[in-house]
Amino acid sequence: MGAEKPIKCLAITSKDGQLEDWEYTPEPLKPGDVDVRVLYNGLCHSDLHVWREDWGPCPFPMVPGHEVVGVVEEVGSSVNHLKKGDLVGVGWFRDACLECDACVKGDDNVCPNGVGTIMGGQKGGFAERIRANAALAQLIPPEIDPAEAAPLLCAGITVWSPISRYVTRSGMKVGVVGLGGLGHLALQFASAIGADVYAISGTASKEKEARGFGAKHFQKIDDVPDKTLDVILNTTPGGIKCADLVNKLTYNGQLVYLGGGTDKVDVLAFDLILAQRSISGSATGGRALFREMFRIAGLHNVRPLIEKIPISKANEAVEKLTNGNVRYRIVLETGDYFKNK
Amino acid sequence: MGAEKPIKCLAITSKDGQLEDWEYTPEPLKPGDVDVRVLYNGLCHSDLHVWREDWGPCPFPMVPGHEVVGVVEEVGSSVNHLKKGDLVGVGWFRDACLECDACVKGDDNVCPNGVGTIMGGQKGGFAERIRANAALAQLIPPEIDPAEAAPLLCAGITVWSPISRYVTRSGMKVGVVGLGGLGHLALQFASAIGADVYAISGTASKEKEARGFGAKHFQKIDDVPDKTLDVILNTTPGGIKCADLVNKLTYNGQLVYLGGGTDKVDVLAFDLILAQRSISGSATGGRALFREMFRIAGLHNVRPLIEKIPISKANEAVEKLTNGNVRYRIVLETGDYFKNK
Repeated sequence: MGAEKPIKCLAITSKDGQLEDWEYTPEPLKPGDVDVRVLYNGLCHSDLHVWREDWGPCPFPMVPGHEVVGVVEEVGSSVNHLKKGDLVGVGWFRDACLECDACVKGDDNVCPNGVGTIMGGQKGGFAERIRANAALAQLIPPEIDPAEAAPLLCAGITVWSPISRYVTRSGMKVGVVGLGGLGHLALQFASAIGADVYAISGTASKEKEARGFGAKHFQKIDDVPDKTLDVILNTTPGGIKCADLVNKLTYNGQLVYLGGGTDKVDVLAFDLILAQRSISGSATGGRALFREMFRIAGLHNVRPLIEKIPISKANEAVEKLTNGNVRYRIVLETGDYFKNK
Repeated sequence: MGAEKPIKCLAITSKDGQLEDWEYTPEPLKPGDVDVRVLYNGLCHSDLHVWREDWGPCPFPMVPGHEVVGVVEEVGSSVNHLKKGDLVGVGWFRDACLECDACVKGDDNVCPNGVGTIMGGQKGGFAERIRANAALAQLIPPEIDPAEAAPLLCAGITVWSPISRYVTRSGMKVGVVGLGGLGHLALQFASAIGADVYAISGTASKEKEARGFGAKHFQKIDDVPDKTLDVILNTTPGGIKCADLVNKLTYNGQLVYLGGGTDKVDVLAFDLILAQRSISGSATGGRALFREMFRIAGLHNVRPLIEKIPISKANEAVEKLTNGNVRYRIVLETGDYFKNK
């Protein structure tokens, strides 16, 4: 095996830094890996959380990008199910053991030996190429546009996972709190499988679009009657009191935290006991859920509403996201950016 | 319909009072009701919580007893499925609408129109007779001793409900925290359905009995490795930090609060999100679960370990329970106590 070619990319070199040109030399391609030429990256708030060290120390330089779509350029010697030219996506994880109890059920996202795409010093998709275990390079179905596929790799799977688990019957009342990148996909997925969907937001100007995404109801949280909802997906990064959400759940109801990791879950046990309510957390999904999600998205035309921005303007895109001006997801287009470097 | 005969009973007349002889005249028997001659009452900590106003104001006089076993003496005109002489039990609820969405699924314990047995001024089973909607008078199978059946009406159903819901496969690792009235039944039910059961207690002297109840492991909470248990049933009235329990859950793990209503559920959303964990509360069960529980208890010989005390000594029994000297459940025997009054 010859020397590895360096990978050109955009990196952040300090907590308060900006994206700048950089390059690194990858480890040799392993027999089970694929090398993927990157076409698109969804820009997700989590990228910012990582380099801003909201979730703990970040080893710099840090290369963002965990909603990566691209074309397979090279396959390792043991890879049979992917070939050069296949359109694939990489989400939060680029590697897993594939042998633990979680992995064998397709839940590789909770593999104790999992390797993140941008965490722990790993280099993400803001680059000309990215390498991943072929098992975690999710095949994107032809009916989904490659740019629109990108946000499904994190925002999409993050909302599909709890919907798949908890919205077990059509007609269930599902509340989606927060109408951003996650929320607008949650509305679509939940309505696609026949739920009675409540968009819960204090921003009246979002009502029309929310109904377009499948919401049957549009209300502020305080206007939802107590004991109403079977499932609440809280996609906000915090700010709504846990008890105020729990009170909206009917008996056996399920509140799911998706967005606000540093949010406090705090209620009295009684608030859960008497109506048999649950609070859970959910994050991304494994191979089994990815396949299911892409099938549902293809079948029911669930798509993110995206704004395409060339990766050359990545810093402006970050600023726009920071200011909360995105409806609903920025997708960075790689184009020829790295070829010209 | 003639005048109703008064019901002799034991009542508490003030928050700090003792049980004393009393009587009250019941409402006329409704067409759907049964009148039950009481044989046994389990003595449960919740009785004490109610009259000591730990859970809010209590209308006095208060007649305890929500683990009531007795014999049907009279059936209302519309009751077809029970007859005089049947052995039945009454738990936390004596009435429900039977027509709401919860009731039609057999989940009458969360009926919004439910009527408690001892809450809200209702008179419980420390009495010669008790009346209940026949639908909520649970038929007790002949293989279960009437005195041993009593604690199943609250402690038993309270632990069976989450086991039935969350211990969905044999071999799952189930932790039971606290080895009292609830805990010793939880060990038996969980092991009866094939779980790998961890008794979690700091009281070394309980190990031998815990293993007798089916525990394969006996450990202090701090000695259980992190990320181990699929389900944790917390039967304690408080004292163990929520985060310390959550950390013992494996991915997709479920922590269930059963005992400590006034306990605080407080963790960071992250503690739930990353491993997709859940926290829930559970309280008693409805008709469907009662039937299932009695079937399982009969099939697998799940029985409470009881100490029978004549109801004439009810105040001593309360003192014994208050002092934590009960292994594992007191059952008060009515005998001829009220006949002699």
